[in-house]
Amino acid sequence: MNRTAPASITKLEQQLLQPGVKGLPITMPLRQADIAAQHWNVLRAETGFPVALLKISALEHNLQWMRRFCAQYGAQLAPHGKTTMSPQLFDAQLSNGAWGMTLATAAQVQVAYRFGVRRVLLANQLVAPADIHAMLTLMQRDPSFEFYALVDSSAGVARLSQAAKKLGMQRPLPLLVELGLAGKRAGCRSTDQALALAREVAAAPGLELAGMEGYEGLLHSHDAKQDREAVGGFVGQLSELLRQADAEQLFTRDQILLSAGGSAYFDLVAAGFAQVKGLSRTVLPVLRSGCYLTSDHGFYNGMIAQLNEREGTAQDQGLRPALEVWSMVLSRPEPTLAILGMGKRDASYDMDLPRALLSHRPGTAAARPAALPDGCRIEKMNDQHAYLRLPEGHAIGAELEVGDLIGCGISHPCTTFDKWPLILAVDDDYSVRHAVNTFF
Amino acid sequence: MNRTAPASITKLEQQLLQPGVKGLPITMPLRQADIAAQHWNVLRAETGFPVALLKISALEHNLQWMRRFCAQYGAQLAPHGKTTMSPQLFDAQLSNGAWGMTLATAAQVQVAYRFGVRRVLLANQLVAPADIHAMLTLMQRDPSFEFYALVDSSAGVARLSQAAKKLGMQRPLPLLVELGLAGKRAGCRSTDQALALAREVAAAPGLELAGMEGYEGLLHSHDAKQDREAVGGFVGQLSELLRQADAEQLFTRDQILLSAGGSAYFDLVAAGFAQVKGLSRTVLPVLRSGCYLTSDHGFYNGMIAQLNEREGTAQDQGLRPALEVWSMVLSRPEPTLAILGMGKRDASYDMDLPRALLSHRPGTAAARPAALPDGCRIEKMNDQHAYLRLPEGHAIGAELEVGDLIGCGISHPCTTFDKWPLILAVDDDYSVRHAVNTFF
Repeated sequence: MNRTAPASITKLEQQLLQPGVKGLPITMPLRQADIAAQHWNVLRAETGFPVALLKISALEHNLQWMRRFCAQYGAQLAPHGKTTMSPQLFDAQLSNGAWGMTLATAAQVQVAYRFGVRRVLLANQLVAPADIHAMLTLMQRDPSFEFYALVDSSAGVARLSQAAKKLGMQRPLPLLVELGLAGKRAGCRSTDQALALAREVAAAPGLELAGMEGYEGLLHSHDAKQDREAVGGFVGQLSELLRQADAEQLFTRDQILLSAGGSAYFDLVAAGFAQVKGLSRTVLPVLRSGCYLTSDHGFYNGMIAQLNEREGTAQDQGLRPALEVWSMVLSRPEPTLAILGMGKRDASYDMDLPRALLSHRPGTAAARPAALPDGCRIEKMNDQHAYLRLPEGHAIGAELEVGDLIGCGISHPCTTFDKWPLILAVDDDYSVRHAVNTFF
Repeated sequence: MNRTAPASITKLEQQLLQPGVKGLPITMPLRQADIAAQHWNVLRAETGFPVALLKISALEHNLQWMRRFCAQYGAQLAPHGKTTMSPQLFDAQLSNGAWGMTLATAAQVQVAYRFGVRRVLLANQLVAPADIHAMLTLMQRDPSFEFYALVDSSAGVARLSQAAKKLGMQRPLPLLVELGLAGKRAGCRSTDQALALAREVAAAPGLELAGMEGYEGLLHSHDAKQDREAVGGFVGQLSELLRQADAEQLFTRDQILLSAGGSAYFDLVAAGFAQVKGLSRTVLPVLRSGCYLTSDHGFYNGMIAQLNEREGTAQDQGLRPALEVWSMVLSRPEPTLAILGMGKRDASYDMDLPRALLSHRPGTAAARPAALPDGCRIEKMNDQHAYLRLPEGHAIGAELEVGDLIGCGISHPCTTFDKWPLILAVDDDYSVRHAVNTFF
């Protein structure tokens, strides 16, 4: 299953990085492929700060974990690439058994295609003329490019069918009908509506019905038991829809796609999909988790802990947080306040503020960073600064100095990846081994 | 005052843009300089969506407005470049009389330097070894590069002095002492503390005291009158600090820098600074507003309205919102709900959610987009989607279709610019004239 890295990635890494790329301590251009040879270590403060880090051991653990998980449930994985938008990470996912990549926009699909991805599920409505044109053009130019998109309205079917006709497509555009949830995002609001739309797709020139899709991740609430039941119900509804469409012989391809699965409940989806049997054609269950790859120290960490419990997985054997943002103490203006050089430009703040985990003083003998004491927390961020509150009366208030390093976990990988055009990959001792690019 | 665009910007615009850059409707690489020749119009849906737009007329108005404002108060402008991080916009600011650029991190300074900026105020503590090294290296390599940084601690002074010594600097590093605010961000917590630090800077080998700095923008609360008084008090304190340091002959340069001024209260700062007279050397008041350039339809719009009132400026003559994000209706799943293809990846959400302003149906005769009726509002955003709630019982609920365009204003330019590597500049009729790059 080991792919050769696409030439476009190799070429990308031959390019010169310019001074000014966040986290890089360079004053002259440097070939990205030469980063390893610099032997930078984050704990020795040899990088720039702030710096975003991927922990290689956690990444590799998560890649293997997900591969085993999917094999166990007989599911395929099209990880959501919008999380990282990183060619090297896409490649790692595909090299570790992923069936294809999921993406959210036509622009993201173009990036993935450019870096060698040849099977894409666009888990979104495809509506804008330029976006439709771009996707159909990729299909026309490259017969090996396998592309699927969603549809939830007659207006959408009409647009896509007309565009396919206008371009004189040699092969039909495969679509999945999106089943939605009342009060939530896109998608048909009932199985009847979805089935009617599936008939339209099957009948429309230039289109073909490839499967059914939904996104159960929107069902998250603060009641885990209720969510579990709601997800189970939704997966059942989606499966039933597939069955009805099959009974009406609306599918014409060899395989029928059945796709759902964000990063919170993909075990429930996989278990539900595994029950779908006895259709006229092979059913391909496709999960789409994006955040499994790095997990986090916040929201997804909590969801993964619940998943581990449901699956009977020991917590230390489950998915591991792989993404950290390190910054330096810039100012110690008050006894319980440290100002860090990390802000909204550097770390997620949409679900929770970053979680201050570790501190380290460069130049000291300590081989490993120390855990910060309880009560240390990022209480606010501006664009370029974080406010680290230190617990009253604790020695840390006197000890923490200007120039010390603080390692933070984040909550929600998607909104941290998109703040870093380049992310450094490190060993467990925080030695920099290579870098991955992102394209947002 | 019209500069020639630096060669590095010209070269940048000769580069090929690849398919996959958000907002661009291309399926083949396109030279950035050839964008104008494509004659794309946003209202005809000829761009990709979502797309971020700069309105050229508003930008030009704001550039002129600020130039006149500074001339009126005898202040210099070093606009905060962290807002846009756009070489072309930096150049427009410098061409319109800006004294230099303010930046927040060493990485940002490197970007600005690369694109021709030769006078920089780093309005932040400079602490990380790689950052110090990079800034001193720029100073060493280029005698024409004028660079100032802040300091608020003895530890900072020691680090900078040691680094300057180690590098054998030919000229001293000019520093401004940062005066802070109790409970707020970095900066000395009293004028006594600041004055003591100023003495340390003046005495430290390799450093020189260039001025005093503070940031009154942190004083924003929900009580405008109280804020005004607090800002006035802080500006007075900063000015008094400057006077004391001058009386002690701590300044040795021809000019003494006195800098404050975000985008909310820069009129109060300018008025306060204009009172600082009779020192032993010329005082150079430097304002640092970054958001004046585009203003917004949210937080800064409100602050600018207050500023207009204080200044006696007619509201339609004040700074104008220049930044919009346009997206397409992807789904109309419920009578009062439209799902847009614009999310946290595309528009600010830290201060307020985007404000839905306009709608337009491509292909219709309407020359201008229509104002959305009251009660239309973005009520939520996911990573790649927005939820546009339509008012109950209004015709818009039946009229708005899949494929219609929605134009949104944003709140907080800094957190929208950083989501777009390329932003299209448009005329008032939404014809695309050129594009500007950003480097985050």
